[in-house]
Amino acid sequence: MNDKICVDFTLKDTAEFLKNKDNYIILTHASPDGDTLGAGYALYYALKQLGKTAEVVCPDLIPARYSYFLSETDHVTRENATIVAVDVADNRLLGSLQEEFGNDVDLDIDHHVSNTRFAKALLLDSDASATCEIMYELLLALDVTLNDTIAKALYTGVATDTGCFKYANVTSRTHNVAAALHSYDIDASEINRLMFDTKSKNVMRLERMVLDRAEYHFDEKCVLLTVTTSMQTKTGCSGPDMEGISIISRSIEGVMVGVTLKQSDTDSYKISMRTFDPLDASVICKALGGGGHKNAAGATMTGDLEAVKATILAAVKEQMEKTNVWSASAE
Amino acid sequence: MNDKICVDFTLKDTAEFLKNKDNYIILTHASPDGDTLGAGYALYYALKQLGKTAEVVCPDLIPARYSYFLSETDHVTRENATIVAVDVADNRLLGSLQEEFGNDVDLDIDHHVSNTRFAKALLLDSDASATCEIMYELLLALDVTLNDTIAKALYTGVATDTGCFKYANVTSRTHNVAAALHSYDIDASEINRLMFDTKSKNVMRLERMVLDRAEYHFDEKCVLLTVTTSMQTKTGCSGPDMEGISIISRSIEGVMVGVTLKQSDTDSYKISMRTFDPLDASVICKALGGGGHKNAAGATMTGDLEAVKATILAAVKEQMEKTNVWSASAE
Repeated sequence: MNDKICVDFTLKDTAEFLKNKDNYIILTHASPDGDTLGAGYALYYALKQLGKTAEVVCPDLIPARYSYFLSETDHVTRENATIVAVDVADNRLLGSLQEEFGNDVDLDIDHHVSNTRFAKALLLDSDASATCEIMYELLLALDVTLNDTIAKALYTGVATDTGCFKYANVTSRTHNVAAALHSYDIDASEINRLMFDTKSKNVMRLERMVLDRAEYHFDEKCVLLTVTTSMQTKTGCSGPDMEGISIISRSIEGVMVGVTLKQSDTDSYKISMRTFDPLDASVICKALGGGGHKNAAGATMTGDLEAVKATILAAVKEQMEKTNVWSASAE
Repeated sequence: MNDKICVDFTLKDTAEFLKNKDNYIILTHASPDGDTLGAGYALYYALKQLGKTAEVVCPDLIPARYSYFLSETDHVTRENATIVAVDVADNRLLGSLQEEFGNDVDLDIDHHVSNTRFAKALLLDSDASATCEIMYELLLALDVTLNDTIAKALYTGVATDTGCFKYANVTSRTHNVAAALHSYDIDASEINRLMFDTKSKNVMRLERMVLDRAEYHFDEKCVLLTVTTSMQTKTGCSGPDMEGISIISRSIEGVMVGVTLKQSDTDSYKISMRTFDPLDASVICKALGGGGHKNAAGATMTGDLEAVKATILAAVKEQMEKTNVWSASAE
């Protein structure tokens, strides 16, 4: 489908490009996270320092917790604008902006190995833990003077995409960037509290409800968590509130595969699966009509809850036996 | 009481001292954590490289989750031994080893500003996030060759004492040390999973029980969590299992002061208090007969549970009003 040519840009190419153009529209991905927003605003502040006109455009409402590095931006008219996407792996992730901008992105700056090369030029570095890790280096290449706000934006992206330096995508380079950003007044502990340690009472109540009904299988190596629509209604929780539950499923001691079933309609369930090696979540979810990564994958299933669970458990069991994680005879 | 002279050592003094002596007994503090164990074993491996005899002695059982950097150590007889304590702020924290070693520690390596200077010599750096941050620099000063195991031990100490780089004690230096350690094969994400993301089902059940009975006061700016002995018995949880609960108390959105009451006997309660600025936990806990730091303090109280709670709430209310965090008229 993609018959356009996508040119690979180095850091230096990208810096040249940004110095030579003007009237930037900076696009973040939909359901914006700390990395796309941090990279987008850091780039905005950098372009302003270079005397450019720039606007950050986000397909969705920006959650209030990011307000410490946001600001009003310029307004840039669509015609003659230079369109730059940040942290956008696929133009479909532009959500409500895909139709308007999806085929006209001049430059995409991203770290996802799965990038679909939808832009005219691409600065891709899949070894970077976060787009903000690349953006830090790009700002240096642009000779931009970092300040507290830019450092806060970049730190937010690096911290959120690495689970506060917890995940396997962290390298020496990630910590070197964080060390450099810590030399500004970023109040990193307050950023981390906002990003990682604040839960609403409603979310806490939903999590307790779900965990009270946790089902363990295969010598407790597998846990099934179900979030029904009635639980969501009772606790007033919706979509993003439920992100934490699939993480919890994987944090129970001894569990090798955590499965979260989120009911979206009477007979429809969104399945999130988290596994530890050697179990491959993408293989199990493929068998369920979905897909994903090795340790985090998903699927959408329809049917009666008990039937859906039985199908999932059969697929999990098959892979557990194949990988010698568990066998029926050992029970 | 402390009429001995405690000599302040620099990094260089400490390296000289360690090169010149032999037959080391390395003491960790009681209820050992990642920092005291990481520093103790990193020092052990370093001393072995220098051709010394050394033993690590821990006052309590070492939790199994640290096994990836532990090893058998030498056996060193008490007489003529050189006694080194790591991450020990006060000789009372040597627990069961205090009587035998408390007054005979030749060298203490520590980062606690509250260090009581009980040792004959002290390498204290209270700007370090962890004793392992100091130990990394000490090993360089000793010209020790780092390897994967030493790097794992040091990373564990830095990560655990900073809540995985989340707390206010993190500086550029902390991230620089982490960057250096990441150049070894440490599998940091697996260490972090073991240290931060694994909870037993019993602990999860206890947390749910406690949160189900959470009491909110002062427009929900204060939460009281009570862990009764019966809850501990029912869930099979004890001391270290309850560490996470006081952290949770502070993570509820809108809460400025989280108070956890752990019943230790019929009429005896250990109080843990966590606050956000401008509320000072040490001031409130002092009024309750305890003490501590600005955002984390504690006290031990005896009496009927409801009376204990009323006393705590009165002390919290007074500080909330004094700092304009809350006032009765606004209710």
